[in-house]
Amino acid sequence: MPCSCSHQNTDSLSMPDKTQMIQVNGANGLNGAKSSGANGANGHPSEAQRRNPYAPRASDFLSNISNFSIIESTLREGEQFANAFFDTKTKIAIAKALDAFGVEYIELTSPAASEQSRADCEAICKLGLKAKILTHIRCHMDDARIAVETGVDGVDVVIGTSSFLREFSHGKDMTYITKTAIEVITFVKSKGIEVRFSSEDSFRSDLVDLLSIYQTVDKVGVNRVGIADTVGCANPRQVYDLVRTLRGVVGCDIEIHLHNDTGMAIANAYCALEAGATHIDTSVLGIGERVGITPLGGLVACLYAANPEYVKAKYNLPMLREIENLVAEAVEVNVPFMNPITGYCAFTHKAGIHAKAILNNPSTYEILKPEDFGLTRYVSIGHRLTGWNAVKSRVEQLGLNLTDDEVKDATAKIKELADVRTQSMDDVDSLLRIYHSGIQSGELAVGQKEALDRLLQQHHETSRERQQLDDVATAAA
Amino acid sequence: MPCSCSHQNTDSLSMPDKTQMIQVNGANGLNGAKSSGANGANGHPSEAQRRNPYAPRASDFLSNISNFSIIESTLREGEQFANAFFDTKTKIAIAKALDAFGVEYIELTSPAASEQSRADCEAICKLGLKAKILTHIRCHMDDARIAVETGVDGVDVVIGTSSFLREFSHGKDMTYITKTAIEVITFVKSKGIEVRFSSEDSFRSDLVDLLSIYQTVDKVGVNRVGIADTVGCANPRQVYDLVRTLRGVVGCDIEIHLHNDTGMAIANAYCALEAGATHIDTSVLGIGERVGITPLGGLVACLYAANPEYVKAKYNLPMLREIENLVAEAVEVNVPFMNPITGYCAFTHKAGIHAKAILNNPSTYEILKPEDFGLTRYVSIGHRLTGWNAVKSRVEQLGLNLTDDEVKDATAKIKELADVRTQSMDDVDSLLRIYHSGIQSGELAVGQKEALDRLLQQHHETSRERQQLDDVATAAA
Repeated sequence: MPCSCSHQNTDSLSMPDKTQMIQVNGANGLNGAKSSGANGANGHPSEAQRRNPYAPRASDFLSNISNFSIIESTLREGEQFANAFFDTKTKIAIAKALDAFGVEYIELTSPAASEQSRADCEAICKLGLKAKILTHIRCHMDDARIAVETGVDGVDVVIGTSSFLREFSHGKDMTYITKTAIEVITFVKSKGIEVRFSSEDSFRSDLVDLLSIYQTVDKVGVNRVGIADTVGCANPRQVYDLVRTLRGVVGCDIEIHLHNDTGMAIANAYCALEAGATHIDTSVLGIGERVGITPLGGLVACLYAANPEYVKAKYNLPMLREIENLVAEAVEVNVPFMNPITGYCAFTHKAGIHAKAILNNPSTYEILKPEDFGLTRYVSIGHRLTGWNAVKSRVEQLGLNLTDDEVKDATAKIKELADVRTQSMDDVDSLLRIYHSGIQSGELAVGQKEALDRLLQQHHETSRERQQLDDVATAAA
Repeated sequence: MPCSCSHQNTDSLSMPDKTQMIQVNGANGLNGAKSSGANGANGHPSEAQRRNPYAPRASDFLSNISNFSIIESTLREGEQFANAFFDTKTKIAIAKALDAFGVEYIELTSPAASEQSRADCEAICKLGLKAKILTHIRCHMDDARIAVETGVDGVDVVIGTSSFLREFSHGKDMTYITKTAIEVITFVKSKGIEVRFSSEDSFRSDLVDLLSIYQTVDKVGVNRVGIADTVGCANPRQVYDLVRTLRGVVGCDIEIHLHNDTGMAIANAYCALEAGATHIDTSVLGIGERVGITPLGGLVACLYAANPEYVKAKYNLPMLREIENLVAEAVEVNVPFMNPITGYCAFTHKAGIHAKAILNNPSTYEILKPEDFGLTRYVSIGHRLTGWNAVKSRVEQLGLNLTDDEVKDATAKIKELADVRTQSMDDVDSLLRIYHSGIQSGELAVGQKEALDRLLQQHHETSRERQQLDDVATAAA
């Protein structure tokens, strides 16, 4: 018995109160035109849907998958990464790169953290970037007074609301939290600056307390409320539910900050947008406390998959790799080999059946187009899992002329060699050239294993002799 | 208007047909007792819930979060990773390690791929492991005949069902696919071997075609049907919906195979289990085609977060790091710095407010207990974001005796030094010892910055002289 709130059945939901939907609907501009109509899985897909069956549908009226802002927190959350120590020059380089990429907000460490933090915050505010500059402070008037003097466009205020944090961290009760929140928000707004109020550890906070304080700060005129999965283990449907509930309670924007301890921070961000969140916190490569938060690149990957045109128009995608390298170098880590988009072999295809299909039509196994990110696709064929269709395409690229039977015969030899050692592209190319010239000269025919072995042997000897002559020549020179 | 299928409202769903629920319900044994009662967010949480508010609830009758099997595919999907070339010895080492960890199934490359693949498959079947051994073949009688001769416990059959793959890969229609599937399944079952039938690229397949073939193979007596997100960009709610729909159509087990191109493969696996899937495909570190599939460690992390007792009883968690290192070395990659559980600083806490709370009660910021994985927690304090509570705990660890005001004073100095350069634990310890002895001797009092600078200066000079004397002594020796 399928559930009534599924992707495929949102049409049947009752309409939400229009007054609560200001930031939510009327948003899917770029996307609306492309994705109208039914889900491809339910009928005969149109051409547009076949190109991208993952596009959000017009009926998902709550979804902000195609209407969101990124709050890039590499210079705040990222500074809490164990390896991070950003000097002023590095901070400025990162801020400029993020601005050029096109993130909507850049969040900086609290100016109350240290003297240098304050000076750096002021310096970045003076750069005149397109991105809005935010700083992140505890819910405290002392911190707020320092923050508003730095020149920031907005202040992100946070306080722990869970019983865990109330008991073991700051020790304050909800009445105190609410009173302080109102005071800080009113003060920051009076300076003409954007203000966000966030709880901390929201998923372990009492729901009634949470909704009550969010409703209160919404009435006081906060620009955004924030939900934070501080311990990093909310799951996607839980995130969807909480954001959706909150969407019905406040009229202001909704931001979400998600730690990645169980590896779900990208998916949780995606579901938050589906439920009506408007702002997602990220950091480059996800750096932050422990294993960090939603990574910028991963978030871009899943949102690009949902609506490539919207994401391409919004961000300078080919810069992603450069920004990741900049930050990786600054904090002395490697870009993970399995990173979405920029990982070492994100666009490398190996299995025989994959290679064949990819050569026919890259969309068969690729939802992300490497060229949109300034990257290229690579089809690997010199291994035991290779297939003759992949080899055939290489034969054609080399301009050789072999029948299908001949290609299959050569492929069998590649598999045999690769069972002992992975063959490089050079090895594969040599073998194909030798096979081809053997066929041309009549020295070889399909199935003549020994003849092929002899030709390969001759080739290796000739190569070795040539190498020795070169070595002698080099030594003599 | 909150959705009616949320985590918090499943009670209101109508009951599914009992006959379809054989593999699904009655499962949450270990968990049931712990998590019965309402979600902590809705009222006053019990002590058990405060320990783990993420535990699945008794009312989630579809969920298999606490009743699942892992099909570990490092030796099949993992072999499709660009860098992977496993010789027989390495394959056996990985199989034994996975078996010792406790995975329920180990999946191997098709014996039809190459001669060595066949020999390795036979060798692993003869090891007498507790885990069931599977091999993964194309939906083809030739492959099936080779597979059943190897001694495997089960055969995983796959064929592309999406219009993309039907057009650009194998070129077969649904009638042909169904006919072949029945033939292969009947043949494998006749040999007394477990058999799974999976579609490929399931999320871009026609839903009616999909359900129709799954229903057919279910009637023929297949043990499991498989869903595969071959291109790696299904999203969590989409996965939930498809699995839940399928759960209503077939009585057999449901397996899911999820690629990780947009970084959602862990979350998608979690949602699949919530919707009634029974088997999840993983590989160590997620290695596989492109950026790979659901990683074993990440899956374990999110399922441990949901039900630590169940996961601890099922798997040898402290072995995780060893298995990841074994595979990382075999394919020549680094364990990603942000890997769940085993990442470089998965249990390192840096921000001042975090450090304080962690020292009071680790559950405040940790949902995974490092000790359950044979790992340890680390609180970093020598940086500009440090807080005096964290420093105080270090003072206590060192057995020094300082008042809160004195600790705050020393913390200010640590922040000042860390603004220039991150301080090592040694640096912090030296400073605290000097501060303490200054207080003891009366040379120092709170706020006497110059006195502290003089003491630190003296210490550096003494250290330098001692170092020079050591150098002279070493040179003379």
